[in-house]
Order: sequence, then C-alpha cells, then structure tokens
Amino acid sequence: MTKKVDILLRGGTVVTMNGKYEVFEDGAVAIRDDTIVAVGPTDEMAEAYSAAEEIDCADTVIMPGFVNAHTHVPMTLMRGLNDDLRLDVWLGYLMPVERQFVTPEFVKLGTRVACAEMIRSGITSFADMFYYEEAIAEQVAEIGMRALLGQTILVFPAPDAETFEDALLLCRRFIEHWNGHPLIQPAVAPHAWYTATPELLLACADLARAFSVPLHTHVSETKLEAENSVAQNHMSVVTWLEQHGILDTKLLAAHCVHIDEEDMFSLRRAGAGVAHCPSSNLKLASGIAPIPQMLKLGLNVGVGTDGTASNNDLDMVEETRLASFIAKVSTQNPTALPARQAVEIATIGGARAIHMGDVTGSLEPGKRADIAVLDMTGIHNQPHFHNHPDAVYSRIVYSSKSSDVTHVICNGRWLMRDRELLTVDESAARLDAIEVAKAIDAFVIRRESSPYNKLVLLSGVQRQESFEVQVKVPLEDDSALRMLLESDALTITRYAHYRQYDHYFLFDNDDPDSDRLRYREDEFIDENGDVTQVRTRLTLIGEGDREEFPNAVMLTRSRWLAAADRSLRFYQEYFAPARELRVHKDRQRWHVLYKATDFAINLDQVLEPSLPGYFLEIKARTWSRSDAERKTSLIAELLTHCGLEVDLADRREYAEIALSANKDKRAVPA
Amino acid sequence: MTKKVDILLRGGTVVTMNGKYEVFEDGAVAIRDDTIVAVGPTDEMAEAYSAAEEIDCADTVIMPGFVNAHTHVPMTLMRGLNDDLRLDVWLGYLMPVERQFVTPEFVKLGTRVACAEMIRSGITSFADMFYYEEAIAEQVAEIGMRALLGQTILVFPAPDAETFEDALLLCRRFIEHWNGHPLIQPAVAPHAWYTATPELLLACADLARAFSVPLHTHVSETKLEAENSVAQNHMSVVTWLEQHGILDTKLLAAHCVHIDEEDMFSLRRAGAGVAHCPSSNLKLASGIAPIPQMLKLGLNVGVGTDGTASNNDLDMVEETRLASFIAKVSTQNPTALPARQAVEIATIGGARAIHMGDVTGSLEPGKRADIAVLDMTGIHNQPHFHNHPDAVYSRIVYSSKSSDVTHVICNGRWLMRDRELLTVDESAARLDAIEVAKAIDAFVIRRESSPYNKLVLLSGVQRQESFEVQVKVPLEDDSALRMLLESDALTITRYAHYRQYDHYFLFDNDDPDSDRLRYREDEFIDENGDVTQVRTRLTLIGEGDREEFPNAVMLTRSRWLAAADRSLRFYQEYFAPARELRVHKDRQRWHVLYKATDFAINLDQVLEPSLPGYFLEIKARTWSRSDAERKTSLIAELLTHCGLEVDLADRREYAEIALSANKDKRAVPA
Repeated sequence: MTKKVDILLRGGTVVTMNGKYEVFEDGAVAIRDDTIVAVGPTDEMAEAYSAAEEIDCADTVIMPGFVNAHTHVPMTLMRGLNDDLRLDVWLGYLMPVERQFVTPEFVKLGTRVACAEMIRSGITSFADMFYYEEAIAEQVAEIGMRALLGQTILVFPAPDAETFEDALLLCRRFIEHWNGHPLIQPAVAPHAWYTATPELLLACADLARAFSVPLHTHVSETKLEAENSVAQNHMSVVTWLEQHGILDTKLLAAHCVHIDEEDMFSLRRAGAGVAHCPSSNLKLASGIAPIPQMLKLGLNVGVGTDGTASNNDLDMVEETRLASFIAKVSTQNPTALPARQAVEIATIGGARAIHMGDVTGSLEPGKRADIAVLDMTGIHNQPHFHNHPDAVYSRIVYSSKSSDVTHVICNGRWLMRDRELLTVDESAARLDAIEVAKAIDAFVIRRESSPYNKLVLLSGVQRQESFEVQVKVPLEDDSALRMLLESDALTITRYAHYRQYDHYFLFDNDDPDSDRLRYREDEFIDENGDVTQVRTRLTLIGEGDREEFPNAVMLTRSRWLAAADRSLRFYQEYFAPARELRVHKDRQRWHVLYKATDFAINLDQVLEPSLPGYFLEIKARTWSRSDAERKTSLIAELLTHCGLEVDLADRREYAEIALSANKDKRAVPA
Repeated sequence: MTKKVDILLRGGTVVTMNGKYEVFEDGAVAIRDDTIVAVGPTDEMAEAYSAAEEIDCADTVIMPGFVNAHTHVPMTLMRGLNDDLRLDVWLGYLMPVERQFVTPEFVKLGTRVACAEMIRSGITSFADMFYYEEAIAEQVAEIGMRALLGQTILVFPAPDAETFEDALLLCRRFIEHWNGHPLIQPAVAPHAWYTATPELLLACADLARAFSVPLHTHVSETKLEAENSVAQNHMSVVTWLEQHGILDTKLLAAHCVHIDEEDMFSLRRAGAGVAHCPSSNLKLASGIAPIPQMLKLGLNVGVGTDGTASNNDLDMVEETRLASFIAKVSTQNPTALPARQAVEIATIGGARAIHMGDVTGSLEPGKRADIAVLDMTGIHNQPHFHNHPDAVYSRIVYSSKSSDVTHVICNGRWLMRDRELLTVDESAARLDAIEVAKAIDAFVIRRESSPYNKLVLLSGVQRQESFEVQVKVPLEDDSALRMLLESDALTITRYAHYRQYDHYFLFDNDDPDSDRLRYREDEFIDENGDVTQVRTRLTLIGEGDREEFPNAVMLTRSRWLAAADRSLRFYQEYFAPARELRVHKDRQRWHVLYKATDFAINLDQVLEPSLPGYFLEIKARTWSRSDAERKTSLIAELLTHCGLEVDLADRREYAEIALSANKDKRAVPA
C-alpha cells in the first residue's frame, strides 16, 4: 500500500549531500507538508509513495537549495552604485546614502528584490546582517525563505539606533519576537570588533547566550583589519573576540580572510561557522581566505555572496565555482576544493556554518524540504559524462548557471516553478527599486558638488568617533588647572604641547551649522620650545547634533578624516568655499585617568583671532547615552576640583567663538 | 531625405567602445549589409535612416560582440571529462581520448556545440587552436561567426598529422584555402615552445610571415614552464620565442601568466596580442597574469575562455568579470581593472589582440556589424544608477549574465534573435554530443583497468619523446667503439656509467607488442666504481610503430614517465601484470656531436639474462621524417667509422632479446 505525500519530484539526478554523498541517477524526493519523507531511486519511490503532485524532473539535477551564508539583502538597492573603489572611498560614498535612505520600507523593498534574485539562483536559506532586521524578517517570512537574520549593533549612530544601547534593545526585542519561528532565526549581529567597544562585544555575547541564538559578525576581512588588531589589541581578531565572549556563542564569522591556524583551531573548538565570500573578497581586493586549510582542520565553512553592493549579485552558482577556482590558484594546487567539496560547502556545509545543519542543507528524510532543481539541458552544459561518480558535481560547479534553476521549494512550499516566482511580485519590486534608485541618483548628484563628495573623491575618508562629551570654560589664568593636575585624584598618562593652525572652509554663508571642512596643521613642540614634527590633515565636520546634559554638552557630529598631502592653496581652489576662517591656538593637552575613566584636558590659548586668557576643555569619548551621563558627572567633579562652576561653560566650538570675535571685521573672501 | 539601411537597433543604451568611450543612453545603430553605417542618439538616427527592419531595444545594452581571444572549440565535447586534476594527470587522461576520437566530424560537432554556447554568451569573434582546423573553418563559416583559426603544429604525432612536417603542410594548405575569407582568418598555431623544436618554431614563423597571417601559441602558462625555459634555454619563454622569429609575426600569445616587464616590452614592441584566460588559469592553478601591468605598458590584451575542458564553459560575461576580480585581488588594489577597462579588453582590446582591431570590437561606422544586445531587466541587475557615466560598464561586468544576451548579429547577419539561435541546430548538436560522450565514457571505462590509467591515477604522467632513430649491433669486444670515440670526427660532450635494473611488467601473454610498464633503477657509478646515486622511475611504453629505414630503425612509441616513489612490491601488486621480466645491464653512455648533430652512444653488457659480449647502440631523437632519414645516414657513417656493417644490426629491443633468451626457461610467474 502506497503512502500519501504532497509532492514527488521524480526522474532527476538526485544529489543528496547526505553523509555518504549518495547520488541517485534516476532518483526521486517525496515531500509531505514541510518535510522530506524519503529520497531514493524513482522506481522504488514511485512504488512506495502516491503524491498529490508528481513533477517530472527528467534531465535535471535535484539538489538541496543553496545556503547563502553571508549577505546584506537590503543593500541590493545600492547595487552598482559605487564600484572599483578603495574600501574607504567606497564606505565614504555608501554610508551617507545609508543614513539618508535606510528605513523599514527601504529594507523591505531591498529584501523583495534580493529574495527574487536569490530564489532564481536556487538559494533557499541565507544569513543576513543589516538594520531594521524586524522589517526584513516580516518580508522574508512572507516570501517563504529560511533565514538567519542578524540585527546590526555598532558604536556609530545607525539608521535604526542612535546608540548601541538602543541597538541592543532593538535586537533583544527582535529576538523575543521571532525566536522559534519555523523560517526565521533571529541573531545578534555586532558589525565587527573595530566598530565595537569591548563592552559592546561583551553585551552582544551575553544577549546571544541568553537566548541561545547565533551571533553573526565580520571577522578579519582585510589585511589592514588583521594588522590593526595586532597593533591595538596585541592579538589576532579571533583571539580578541574570544576574550570578549564571542566564541562562547553560536558564532557565524563572515570572511575570515586573514586568519592563521591558531585562529582556525579556536573557531573549530568554538563550533563556529565561517562564511567564505569569494566575489566580495576579490572585488574589494581583500584577499583569498585559506579555505582548504580550514576544511582540512574540520571547520564548518559556508559560501556567501556578501551584499550586492560589493559583489554585485546574489548568484550562489557563481560563488560556488569561484570558491573552487580561488582555492586552487591560491594554493597552486588544481586538486584543491574539488567540485564535490564545493557543492558541500555551498549546501550542507553552509547550513552547518549558519547553525541550521539539523534542518536544511541536504536531502534527507526528516529534514525540511529545501530544494533546488537545475535544468541540465542548456548547451553550455553539454555533453555529460558518467564514467566518474563525481561528474555531476563537476557539472553543477563548473558549467551550470543560476539561470538553469527551474524549480525552488523551501519548507515544502513552492517558491519558483518553471522559472516563475510564486511568492514575490518581481516586476513590481523592479519598478519600486527603479524609483528608489532615482531618488538615490538625485541625492548623489546633489552631493556631487558637496565638500563631502569632493573629499571622498580626492583621497577617501575615514570615519572618526561621533560621540564626545565636553565642557569648555574660559579662564583668566592656568592656576586652577595646575592645582587640579597636581591633585591625587587623577593620574596623568600623557602630555603633549602643540600649536594648531586651523583653516576652516565654510560652504554656506547663511547656515553656520552646515558642513565645514577643517585643514589643520599641528606643530608639535618639545620641552625646549622647538618644533619637532608637523602633521596636516583634513576633517570634514558634518551637520551637528548637540545634546545638553546637566553638566556638559554631548556632541554627535560625524567627522570624516582624510590625509592632507597637498597644499592649502590646492584645497582652497578645489573646495571653493563660500568663506574661510582661521583659528590658531596654542594647546597643552594632558591625558588623564580619573576614577578609571580616560579624559583629555586641554589648556588652549587662542592666538588668531587674538583672544585674552585661556580656555580649559575637558573631553571624553562616549558610545552610549548612559555612558555619556556618567562621564558628564565626572567632568562636573573635575571642574569642582578646579574650583570652577559648570555654568561658566562656553557651549560654543572654537569656530563659532572665532566667527563671533570676527563679526565686526569682514570675513576673508573665498 | 532618409538613407536606407537594412537594420536599425534603436532605443537601447549603446556602448560603442570607440576611442572616446561614447555611450548613448537612448541610442541606435544602423546596419547596411555587413557594415555599421552609423551610431548615435535614437532621435537623430531615426530621422537620418529608414530601415527595412527596426528593432526596439528598450531596456537593453547594445554593445560590440565579445571577442573570445583564446579557445579550443572542439574540446567542448570533453567538457567535464576530467576535473580537479593536476595538469600532468589531466593531460594524461585527455591525450589518449584526443588520439582516439578527434576526427573532422568530431571537431565539426564540437564547433557546433561551442558556437551555440558562444553566441548565447554574446561572442561574435573568437581565436581557436586545434587539429583539423580546415573542418572547423567550414563549420564556423556556415554558422557565421568571425574567427581566427590556428592549425596546431607540434612535434608529437597529432590526430591530423604524424609528423610536424605533415602538420606544416596541412597548415600551409589551410592558409592558402581560407586566407581572404570575410569571416575566417587562418593562422599558424605552434602549440607551445616546449612541444616544439627550434626548427619547428622557425618554420612556423616563416610560414606566418610568408602569408602575413597571425601566429597563435601558448606562452608561459605555468610557473614550471617559465622555470623550465630558464633552465633549458637560459632565457625567458618570450625571449626564446623572439630568438626563433615568433615575435616577428602577428603574434597572439595565450596566457602569459608568468612573464616579466622585459617580456612585456618585447611583446609590445612586436605588436603582439595577449589572450588572458582567467577561469582556466584559476582552475588549473596556473596563477594570475599581471594584466594591469601589461595594460599600463600599452599591450594589446584580450580575454579568452580557453577550452571548455579546462574552464568548463565559454561564458565571456563571466570571464570579463573574473578578469576584473583577479586583477584586483592579485594587486591588492580594488581600483585595478575597473569595469570600463574590463569591457574594453573583452571587446576592442580582444579584437586588437587577435589582430582584427580594424574590423571588429567596437561600434563604429565602417566596421563590421558584430553586435550583442543584453537585456537589462533581469532582477539580478536591478536597480540601475545614472549618476556616474561608467555605471553601464559596472552593470555589464559585475551583474550581467550571459543568459541576458538576447540578440547577436555578426557581419550584419542575425545569429540569435530573442534568444533563439538561427544558424545552429542546438538540439541536434546536443543529441549528437550525447552520443559522442557515450562513446568516450565507454572508452574511458575500458581503459579504467589498463596499466595506463592506473599509472595516471597513481601519480600523473609526463609524455616523453616519441620518435627515436636507433641502431643496435652486437659486439664481441669494445675495440671498434674505442676507435670511433678516439677519432677526430666526433666530439664527446658527456659521459656516464651506470647499471640499469629494469623490471618489465607485461600485461598480455599473447601480444608481446602491447603496453608494457618498465620499473627502472639506475645506479650511477663514478670513476672508482662506487655507486653515487640511485634513481627509480616508471615508464609505460605504449604500442609501438616501427619503421625500417635503410640504415636503422625509427621507433615511434609513446612513452609516459612517472616518478617511482614506492617499492617494486607495491607496483607488482598495484599493476598485477600477466608476466614480469628482468633485464639488468651495465651501460656506458657517451653523448657525442657528429657533423653538428647530437647522438647518444651506449655500450651495454646484458647481465640478466646473462648474454655474452656487448651491444653497441647509437641513438638520436628526431621529430620528422626527413630529419630521421638524415640521421639514419649519419648513424650508418658512424658504424662505418667503427668498421661495422648495418646488416649486423639487431632490430629488437632489449625486452624482446631477453624474452627470447628466456624462452627455454619458464617465465617468472606474476
């Protein structure tokens, strides 16, 4: 008596990717509800099962849906926006666009476009990391793909969170809402160690452990990142993450281009997954990850497309091929990462890497029915050989195209049939994306003449800290400060003396708070009063946001740094500012430790315009609102030590003070 | 008054790849007969021209057809036959299949399958190198693609020529027949310097110059090849080719992975083209060619797919993307080979590289109408940005797929329209290819248990010389030889003394001339009679062909060498021969120069089976019939110097002499 099932895919070459790498040349897969009931030769299966729907799969390969182990789906709306650029220049262009455009609606649309493309490429599961992951989850669940979705947490203000505490809270709510969903696995996604503080990493690890959800982060993507870790932390990125609890989570580590064998052992011990992103690593010139070595050591490696902004597509057939190609060339060994192993990391390996190996990645009874069917009749895939059992993997990896994918089933549901998408309105998504692209085009063109874009074009930019609490108090003499510095309450950790020649370029006569560019020369002065070193740099100070705390000001200004290797005259011509402003000052700076907290104390004399007396500044970096509150209290205490009152504070920046001092004079014409 | 044209492609984004990189966002191309008449904005073009056929190209890119700068089209019938193998193992598998199957019908079928795939990928021109190029030309001309077709010439017996003189003659006839054809440009194709002799290279260069046709050859593909050139020729591959006249031809140099700046300058001076083959170089782990440096120096670089047996597809969209990707990662510079430059080398650059830059590669009035139209509405290519003039190149290189190609026109003729091939019967070609694949499968399976395949599986093989002229004369003593060696007529260039312990595995009791495997230990002996070094190796000696010359014997046996790093016992078990045979001998070998020709003279004593007296052998390598005739005459002269007659010669090999000496004894049971 035959058993009833919902769907029987029959007559194709079934590539199971089970533990024995079983292949059934004329095979079938039986599906009931969301689950694979059985896999085997068509004749046996046809006898054992009667299906509501029988699908003739002659001349096809029936295989597990691909697992895209690392991507940023909403970035699909930025595909091709910035190519062939250095990473800093690329980020320089991308980040303002993200800040301007990323909303829940934006990420949902990006998700629709990306899912349409991914389904066409035979992908049934993916691991994402972006903002507004809640909105992404809603969209993905509706479309019916399986996904590990990581809510991004970082120290910079993000489109969906001003501070990292807000981001953590958002992430916690997201996890509470979605954990246990049949398709969506929420995850914690600290963007990377270098956009995190130690506390942020610890908090993320705690959160992931508290809910036993995976943690998705970027690890050692570039050589610079790996070198910076050694320089700053005196250890590798992986060891740094280990020390901050990240390896005690279900870790998905994206990229891992620059890791060594010790790191690999650590990741293996931790049961971590590695997402290898060939196209992205090549296109951004990040390097080639040592995947054959990782596989030899038994690491769980998956293959990812990364976001389309750095790829520029979501084509897992191509990524799988590339994974094999670059493994060979980088090891000078054409037998490295052979076709079967490439298919493995793109399916079951990827499923294990994203901590879903128990539900997807292979065609085995009991697993969810996540299946891709590839047409093998394309002329680009002729002829077929059968003298070797691995020939079918060769066909998939070395000559198939994503356009060969004809059917896709995920969780037992048809997502694509005969190349027709059933759960995404592809043409509507396309039209909506065209509208968004128009708006982005307009925004970028508007910025084209902006100092920001000109700076990026010139030399790329590096983003600096955004949050700073500070107080500035005018002093008649330095005696109060001297007293403070001699007190036992604080420890001086560093001292520097320099003259700062700031040249501000102002671009809007009417709006003093708009973007301004600062060309700064620092002359470092030694104990004899001699100049020992001169450093010049450009800083673009974005539109600011200032928040008044009881005891100080928190400034949230975006700052973009660039090397200044040309003359002031060049920059004057290049940026063509509306006005210019000179502020020269003599600065003595003490780095001090007070109640285990770092502060910088500046004693400034403004020389141009010539202002009487001194300014005392006390500053600290901060990354979150509660931290800012704590630090402003400490600043108030420090002022008290000097015998100064907080209400003496001048809440303006030097540029503003100088502008007002100049107000009776004519400004220097640009 | 409007001018009449045949075809007007209108309303697409026209990417001209002309000298100014002009792009017409809403553009048109007018075609009359085989020629592009005009290119420009649609509105102007529609006013100026009235066309018999107007094609709406909205939402497409209209661009020059891709130029595939290096391939071996008939190898398409061996796609996926041998993957993930070392080059020597790969060649070991491939060459016997080629020898068995390659016929004019085979290459024609392979050409049909390959052209179908290439047209689908938007390719209109390609550069080929294979056997029976005459048959390929007939097929390509019928299909209507443009091609540079190189008749292969090499020192080994080839499917279409026993000797290189035959191959040269074939090539000359091929050129005479096709030179001047509107689509087919015949070329001379010496396979590579390492499968050539100096004379062969010189003859090829002469032939190419005589007809002013291009010369297509493989150059410095692997590190080993580059190192061997330095070791053997004391110069780089490019310099060696230059010294043999190859750079005085219209050279198309395939691969050029391992060349230095001096080589690049030489190639540039020579006006040579370089065919860069990303997939093949990655898949065979050959390395990454320094393309950005070549482009900086002004070399003509094109992009090629290489043959499908090492790719495994003919997808120029993918190759173009890969060319950009690997340029970036290998230079650690993400701005290397940007999208526009990638399109350039895949079109006009390729056309120049294959010496067809005056007729194809760009959309310019007067050039042949070789055009590909790419659909830009695929979801994998959404959205489009327009804020940067190079965005269209980005779209082509980083997110298009060959499956986006909808129309292809070559020489003014439609080859594909709305994705339908018009000049190749694709499904018939597929069915024919399936039949050929079945026959190859059967052949390979039959060989699976052969000593040949077992040897290949074990350690890969290297092919040795195939032609040797030799004479063997039994001597009672060595006095005649000593006299010869002391004569002024010859110069001794090298001397060696060793004992050879040969162990033959025979696989067919009934056919003494079938494959036999020789396990040889060479004990090198110094002047004191001490053993200084022991070397072991395996040689599979294929079925022989021997040709009697008046004065000697020419043997054409294929020999395959493999390192023997395991014990004799292992090989006995692994190969399980029908019989074994031991031949031990003491050999003194003199390398001599006689009349400017190299000979090896052996004085052998056969120790096992124990035979009386000596054997004198005089041998020379040869590559052609006329050379063999000349050398056998010289051998006869040398024998005369010893006072020996040619009719004394024993025409058997040692294995046969030993077998006959053993015939009364029982053979050693296997």
